[in-house]
Amino acid sequence: MSVIQALRGTLGEDRVLTGDDMAAWSTDWTGRYRWTPLCVVRPGSTEEVCAVMRIAHAAAVPVVPVSGHTGLAGGTHGDGAVMLSLERLNAIEEIRPEARVAVVGAGVVLSALHEAAEAQGLSFPMTFGARGSARIGGLLATNAGGSNVLRYGNTRDLVLGLEAVTAEGRVLDLMTALHKNNAGYDLRHLLIGSEGTLAVITRAVLKLVRQPRAHATAMVAARSVSEALVLLNRLQDVSGGAVEAFEYMPAAYMDTYLALHPEARAPFDSPQAVNILLELGVTAPRDSTPGEDGLVPVTGSLQETLAELMEQGLVLDAVVARSETQRAEMWARREAAAEVSLSRLGALVNDVAVPLDAVEAFLTEAGARCRALDPDVQEMVVAHLGDGNVHYALWPSGAAEGGALVEAVEEVVRALGGTFSAEHGIGLHKKASMARHRDPVALEAMRAVKTALDPKGILNPGKVLP
Amino acid sequence: MSVIQALRGTLGEDRVLTGDDMAAWSTDWTGRYRWTPLCVVRPGSTEEVCAVMRIAHAAAVPVVPVSGHTGLAGGTHGDGAVMLSLERLNAIEEIRPEARVAVVGAGVVLSALHEAAEAQGLSFPMTFGARGSARIGGLLATNAGGSNVLRYGNTRDLVLGLEAVTAEGRVLDLMTALHKNNAGYDLRHLLIGSEGTLAVITRAVLKLVRQPRAHATAMVAARSVSEALVLLNRLQDVSGGAVEAFEYMPAAYMDTYLALHPEARAPFDSPQAVNILLELGVTAPRDSTPGEDGLVPVTGSLQETLAELMEQGLVLDAVVARSETQRAEMWARREAAAEVSLSRLGALVNDVAVPLDAVEAFLTEAGARCRALDPDVQEMVVAHLGDGNVHYALWPSGAAEGGALVEAVEEVVRALGGTFSAEHGIGLHKKASMARHRDPVALEAMRAVKTALDPKGILNPGKVLP
Repeated sequence: MSVIQALRGTLGEDRVLTGDDMAAWSTDWTGRYRWTPLCVVRPGSTEEVCAVMRIAHAAAVPVVPVSGHTGLAGGTHGDGAVMLSLERLNAIEEIRPEARVAVVGAGVVLSALHEAAEAQGLSFPMTFGARGSARIGGLLATNAGGSNVLRYGNTRDLVLGLEAVTAEGRVLDLMTALHKNNAGYDLRHLLIGSEGTLAVITRAVLKLVRQPRAHATAMVAARSVSEALVLLNRLQDVSGGAVEAFEYMPAAYMDTYLALHPEARAPFDSPQAVNILLELGVTAPRDSTPGEDGLVPVTGSLQETLAELMEQGLVLDAVVARSETQRAEMWARREAAAEVSLSRLGALVNDVAVPLDAVEAFLTEAGARCRALDPDVQEMVVAHLGDGNVHYALWPSGAAEGGALVEAVEEVVRALGGTFSAEHGIGLHKKASMARHRDPVALEAMRAVKTALDPKGILNPGKVLP
Repeated sequence: MSVIQALRGTLGEDRVLTGDDMAAWSTDWTGRYRWTPLCVVRPGSTEEVCAVMRIAHAAAVPVVPVSGHTGLAGGTHGDGAVMLSLERLNAIEEIRPEARVAVVGAGVVLSALHEAAEAQGLSFPMTFGARGSARIGGLLATNAGGSNVLRYGNTRDLVLGLEAVTAEGRVLDLMTALHKNNAGYDLRHLLIGSEGTLAVITRAVLKLVRQPRAHATAMVAARSVSEALVLLNRLQDVSGGAVEAFEYMPAAYMDTYLALHPEARAPFDSPQAVNILLELGVTAPRDSTPGEDGLVPVTGSLQETLAELMEQGLVLDAVVARSETQRAEMWARREAAAEVSLSRLGALVNDVAVPLDAVEAFLTEAGARCRALDPDVQEMVVAHLGDGNVHYALWPSGAAEGGALVEAVEEVVRALGGTFSAEHGIGLHKKASMARHRDPVALEAMRAVKTALDPKGILNPGKVLP
């Protein structure tokens, strides 16, 4: 019996797609990768995921787990593979307000979880542009980052427990809602960020946080990235660490965004070199009652602080959002990042991070190195500046080989103690960088772990490890 | 050439101890475990640790890493083993105030790091009673918990990077100061909490936090554990999540403490059933200027909040610390926990955690189950109540077998979705519990990882995995 027949026998005809029905699972959001799967399976329970894995394991057929298709690193490429879609595991099983946890399936869409948490006065603080499509399984598999990491950490910091299915089709039960649990190796953190190469994540227990009772959101123009970081520290001091997002968009980014969105408004009356989107979230009730000016105090106090900093010359211009509409308009600029960066054919994406105090040096040095190779190269930068995470896209003119430009960027990153993959992961896209820049002893340990947990090498083969 | 000769040849005579010189490395703090090592080595650098591991690996001799000897689970037991002491790797190599990180050796004593961070206006927020002896290597190897986990997380949440030496004596370089880094499997989290069974941690990059500019510390008497948790939520709401510690000491604990420390004062005028030590830390400057009453506002506002809650009957009595001396007196009661729990011969220590909303049920049910087995058993409880982490010691009368009492407690824990090991780890002490209560598929995955990274099984053999 063929693998497809065996899968159909177990899941039912309509849960195993082939031919043209596989179109949606034969490419990813970037369009950069295209492949031809063996078939697509759509199991509806953990038990069915186990059955799929048992069949694939017996036949030694590769399996590529996939949820929202929004990855940027080719992590779901699967020529000849069983594409294991987790989208039907989309139950928000439980929201426990007292314990501040959510129990969810891997197929839950991020924005659906946002809404469910908010309905209980809580918040799941991980967020990014693709939240309407990205699903929890993919978030965990890639340890997704985003715009609130500054305050709430990466995806892994928001996961208390998880359930996964092993390569041979058994349930690995790590479901717990505890904040302290020292009972053996932390397999949870090993699976998070392993991009489906060690096991298939099927469910998770996620931390929720108190929903900020008030947000203060502003666009600020600064003279330089370094001065923007002084501003960040000042705001952290004044607010007691309440800054949730601190996002950098240079002039070239803003120009491209406005060109792609003729209906959109520029953030300031005159164009600025350093545009910062910042947001504070405050939970204490004393900060949430609107004052005489109609602003909640946190917004008022942000306005005062920014006014002071303008007097000191640290802030060149500033606009504080006075409504949810204005706040949404500010965020729309930032959340077009992937669209903006990839709007030119042949764009080279670098998702790097360096220590905060090295961001300015990185931008200067990487720019110089790239222009030495390709004088007409254009940089398209957008950054989670508060984390030191720079999305450093390059639009080459063709004067230099793309790989040479990426290597040049990565050498600057490495010299500054940074990483070539901050939040997008490795997939296929950054495997060469893994080989170039990760410690060989660490790579060997990763390979040993991979072989230990997936001896036949059927789980998302060819990804992550060079 | 014998292993001892080889080690002496490499490290020098005086860095390899044998015979009576090994006394300090032949038992741990509890005195419960005693053993006879092969020898004790005291390397002074990562390179020397590599050399030790190469010699041990070639000879297939067991190696037990040890730093501060303050573990409670027998994790450093080492009959016939090379005791690898990390205490000489005690350099605080760097404190980078801008990046808020410390780079330290595994031998740094926790309180030394506290002082070094404070000298820069920062704080390393992990703390517990043994901070004057415990060393960073042990903290990381056991993922130490303590009293501030509620706000700052466990040890693993404070580690950005680390360096370790593998079983075969090579340097595993995971040193990074980045907050976002998705470049392959997270070996850092795999090593943290693995109790020296996968590699020897030699250095680390640790997160520092802004030092709270003001603390408000109080002892509060509540009617019940459940009402104390209502109080915790109320304080979190009012302070915007600034509660750093919320510690529970019942009457029996307080009585024993006072009996052991005749010089100490009782917390309240009359004895109380539910004694809570709580502490808030506030970083914003607006809360740190003393008011007319000489109290910083955060203390004043705690006093007001507690007065309101007394009127509502939720708080029975309360004392707010008005000086550092009073604060230290409050903490001294809590930090005698290990001494108090183990002050009776034959004490059975259970370090459990349950979801917050199940703590009261745990205490009631565990007490009933234990008294059914041993009517004269005495409970000696102290808890990090804000984390659901209960140190549930039992002083048995001898009417029941100790193992039966522990199993009864663990069954109650498991039924409530809890863990039998919250922060102390497994070592030798909780191996039977691992076998009873952890998912067999998870145990198998852990064993596969152990074999992959330490094929000869020389690193702290016999620990953690049943």
